Amino acid sequence: MLSGGEFHLEEDPTDAAHTFADEIRREFPNTVEKPLLRLVPGAGGLSVEPLVVGVVFSGGQAPGGHNVVAGLLDALTRANPASRLIGFLDGPIGVIKNRYIELTPERVEPYLNTGGFDMLGSGRDKIEKPEDLEACRKNLTALGAHGLVIIGGDDSNTNAAVLAEYFKANSVPVCVIGVPKTIDGDMKNDYIEASFGFDTASKVFAELVGSICRDSMSARKYWHFIRLMGRAASHITLEVALQTRPNLAIISEEAEARGWKLMDVVDLIADVVTRRAKAGKSYGVVLIPEGLLEFLADVKAMIAELGSILGEHEDYLKSLTSHEDRRQFLTEKFTAESAEVYNSLPDGIQEVLLLRDKHGNIPLSQVETEKLLIDLVSDRIREMKAEGRFPGSFSPLAHFFGYEGRCVQPSNFDADYCYTLGYTAAQLIRGNVTGYTVSARNLTAPVSEWVMGGVPVTSMLTVEMRKGKPKPVIRKTLVSVDGKPFRAFAAERDSWVEEDRFAYPGPIQYFGPSEVCDRLTKTLMLEHS
Amino acid sequence: MLSGGEFHLEEDPTDAAHTFADEIRREFPNTVEKPLLRLVPGAGGLSVEPLVVGVVFSGGQAPGGHNVVAGLLDALTRANPASRLIGFLDGPIGVIKNRYIELTPERVEPYLNTGGFDMLGSGRDKIEKPEDLEACRKNLTALGAHGLVIIGGDDSNTNAAVLAEYFKANSVPVCVIGVPKTIDGDMKNDYIEASFGFDTASKVFAELVGSICRDSMSARKYWHFIRLMGRAASHITLEVALQTRPNLAIISEEAEARGWKLMDVVDLIADVVTRRAKAGKSYGVVLIPEGLLEFLADVKAMIAELGSILGEHEDYLKSLTSHEDRRQFLTEKFTAESAEVYNSLPDGIQEVLLLRDKHGNIPLSQVETEKLLIDLVSDRIREMKAEGRFPGSFSPLAHFFGYEGRCVQPSNFDADYCYTLGYTAAQLIRGNVTGYTVSARNLTAPVSEWVMGGVPVTSMLTVEMRKGKPKPVIRKTLVSVDGKPFRAFAAERDSWVEEDRFAYPGPIQYFGPSEVCDRLTKTLMLEHS
Repeated sequence: MLSGGEFHLEEDPTDAAHTFADEIRREFPNTVEKPLLRLVPGAGGLSVEPLVVGVVFSGGQAPGGHNVVAGLLDALTRANPASRLIGFLDGPIGVIKNRYIELTPERVEPYLNTGGFDMLGSGRDKIEKPEDLEACRKNLTALGAHGLVIIGGDDSNTNAAVLAEYFKANSVPVCVIGVPKTIDGDMKNDYIEASFGFDTASKVFAELVGSICRDSMSARKYWHFIRLMGRAASHITLEVALQTRPNLAIISEEAEARGWKLMDVVDLIADVVTRRAKAGKSYGVVLIPEGLLEFLADVKAMIAELGSILGEHEDYLKSLTSHEDRRQFLTEKFTAESAEVYNSLPDGIQEVLLLRDKHGNIPLSQVETEKLLIDLVSDRIREMKAEGRFPGSFSPLAHFFGYEGRCVQPSNFDADYCYTLGYTAAQLIRGNVTGYTVSARNLTAPVSEWVMGGVPVTSMLTVEMRKGKPKPVIRKTLVSVDGKPFRAFAAERDSWVEEDRFAYPGPIQYFGPSEVCDRLTKTLMLEHS
Repeated sequence: MLSGGEFHLEEDPTDAAHTFADEIRREFPNTVEKPLLRLVPGAGGLSVEPLVVGVVFSGGQAPGGHNVVAGLLDALTRANPASRLIGFLDGPIGVIKNRYIELTPERVEPYLNTGGFDMLGSGRDKIEKPEDLEACRKNLTALGAHGLVIIGGDDSNTNAAVLAEYFKANSVPVCVIGVPKTIDGDMKNDYIEASFGFDTASKVFAELVGSICRDSMSARKYWHFIRLMGRAASHITLEVALQTRPNLAIISEEAEARGWKLMDVVDLIADVVTRRAKAGKSYGVVLIPEGLLEFLADVKAMIAELGSILGEHEDYLKSLTSHEDRRQFLTEKFTAESAEVYNSLPDGIQEVLLLRDKHGNIPLSQVETEKLLIDLVSDRIREMKAEGRFPGSFSPLAHFFGYEGRCVQPSNFDADYCYTLGYTAAQLIRGNVTGYTVSARNLTAPVSEWVMGGVPVTSMLTVEMRKGKPKPVIRKTLVSVDGKPFRAFAAERDSWVEEDRFAYPGPIQYFGPSEVCDRLTKTLMLEHS
């Protein structure tokens, strides 16, 4: 797509008509109902003036971020060597506080193809409060900026739309463009086939899980419970399962669709462990998505009740000095089922849940779900053993992989993809459009056939109730149990239970045969097969 | 070294004269005082008869084990196509119980360059009891075996010597040869420059640690406490530190040499965290070797006392129903210093230490040292904060890497090295020598210049007191604080504390430029520079 020459933007006729919720029309009067845009070869309509553009990382790291910046800088300076790129520091707070560095080719070049966001840092602040919106206007105007590129996930792209709308409403000539980033893989839709970082991170986790599968099968004495990052969607767990074929992989979305409770998951794991024990295999691997607990019916209900109880009685609970007293008090307040769920948790976890975070949320994500499941499954197997229903032994080990995959140097796919995303973001700013996220389609084809362009953020917005108020958001795309990746997994997984069908993808390769170095994720291939 | 043609074995004149302890002369009368052997090009003296050879994996997995088998098989069948290789299953117990499979080229070929020991399985049994020695004799004789290759670490190679001596004493014509394996890197000496697996495993851990360093520097809000496998020696931690330059790496052998106590380590970490906090950096990475606690003076003393107390009062302690009662009883029995150490540990760890393993040992290795240190450092920083001596925040995260590195496909170095080790083992059996471990020198040179051969296991034995009795063992080679790798680390590390000097080795590469794919460990290069 980027092979030399000039481009222009054209309206994409393939886009379906949208119906916009009133909430979205009301909040985005100036940026709603814009066309889907496609970047196509041939000069026309894109600015060749020197441009000043800002760029900022928002949220958690994902492999390839530095290449987005490199693509952006190359595209800007290729269109006009006098163009300037401003890198805001430590995330959106840098735009608000006007902290930045000038990004020259000399500064960016050493970061090409490196992992991390350390060239600029990142942060989780949002540009939402009126005074922050105003500060951004002031700072960008003072810099003479024509555009701002926000590299982030669903929330950050929503934030880009808010900022674009604010600028448009106030006649500020700064285009705001989002770039889809998240290793979780949950920012994808008809316009964006993949968020960057998912390819690399899932391959790193698959490398590690594959090695542990091989270790399990060599040592023949451990059960490895491996939790994988991904707060909401289970895309990573599904992709890693497709790449490595563990004995069992729990998918949160399936658990929710089937209305599973915590003990259903325990039953499922205990059943697989028992079937293997009966086949003489006291070892295996089970994958657990980080966000699982939030998808389990009884845990969700218990957490909701706990929220209400804490809302009403937090001070009294804090005044109780012993864990046992707190437990008893809560048991009386809970419904019978929630009391049972709460009391089935280990003491430490019972206490952790009482410590609400600064947003007032129950810190369910602090629960080490793999260890909780090890505890509960161990109890179950002890009972079965006492009843003579479990042969063999059960020695579980816990692992959590997450931080290991966020700052890896990008795979060849993510390296190309990120550079292309940045390059495209520059063209959208040259085209003077705002409130868009870079779109990317046909990614299973060779790079030269990728269809790049822009999708209006408003086209991706839906309205969700947050804290009792309607709020436009880009909904996270969860694993669809009707989608091809899940169906491929579901069709195969039974054969993984008793047989050792493990696969070992190995470390990401950059230099070798294309089938090794440039292979796509199974998710992407299946979704577009 | 292996470039075509025939070989013979010659006595190596470079070997120093040995003095053997009486204990070793007494236990190994038939296999002591043998010459160091070197494999050199040119035919002469090696059997060209068809040979039957057994091979067995012993102990924990290390990358490259399958290549040892492949090299062994190739060498045997190249010398005589009628030779046979027998693979014993699930470790030494397979030799005792006569469980094996025939290893044909068709069976071995798919495992070439793969990780794991799953072609045969492994196990930790030892061939020591008279009836087990006799069973091995019987089984190997029935197979018509000429040799047995034991792929294992220090204990397994000692075990090879015991078996060789037993066979020699009983005129059993089976040669026993050991191959030096362990990711921990602690089986090395003048004859063996590296144990196989260390190169690959340390590179996998360095990949992960490097990514976490980058994550730390990008997110700028977490302190990562990373424990790395290696029960005794800190070679892995030292190598990973040299490859990634974390802010702090604790080396057990230095801690012991300096007589550090647990609180000295806590002080050291707290000091580094504070220095960085004062420089505005509330993030960083600290590496902790798995075996650290066993090297700390006060912990060692406490564990020794606890062993005595448990020996005398275990039943009474078990009769106490509450943790507090047990703690109080122990506090009275301990010396004041051990009581203080014991009571400084979190409750859970205090209890874990009371559960002796099946060998009667205190299970110190079950302590998650990185979490213990996080607890203790957090307490320290809370105090300092209360006194206004600590600016900034401290958000620690715990990691443990071990199982991830044991079954990876071997690096190019380990792939070549393992194949060569197996190839050489075959030549030693063809030369009809027994009680030898394959030796390997000049490994920093190109493969064609490696000096391969055999070292009598007895030359590596020293006598240690175990359970009150003198026992010949191959002593684990720990990190020398006078050695070049440690000195290189010590010379550099101060500059890693406040500045971010992190390095990111990335995943192991197989296909690219030689400086990427064939780089040696820093340890090996420094030791032989």
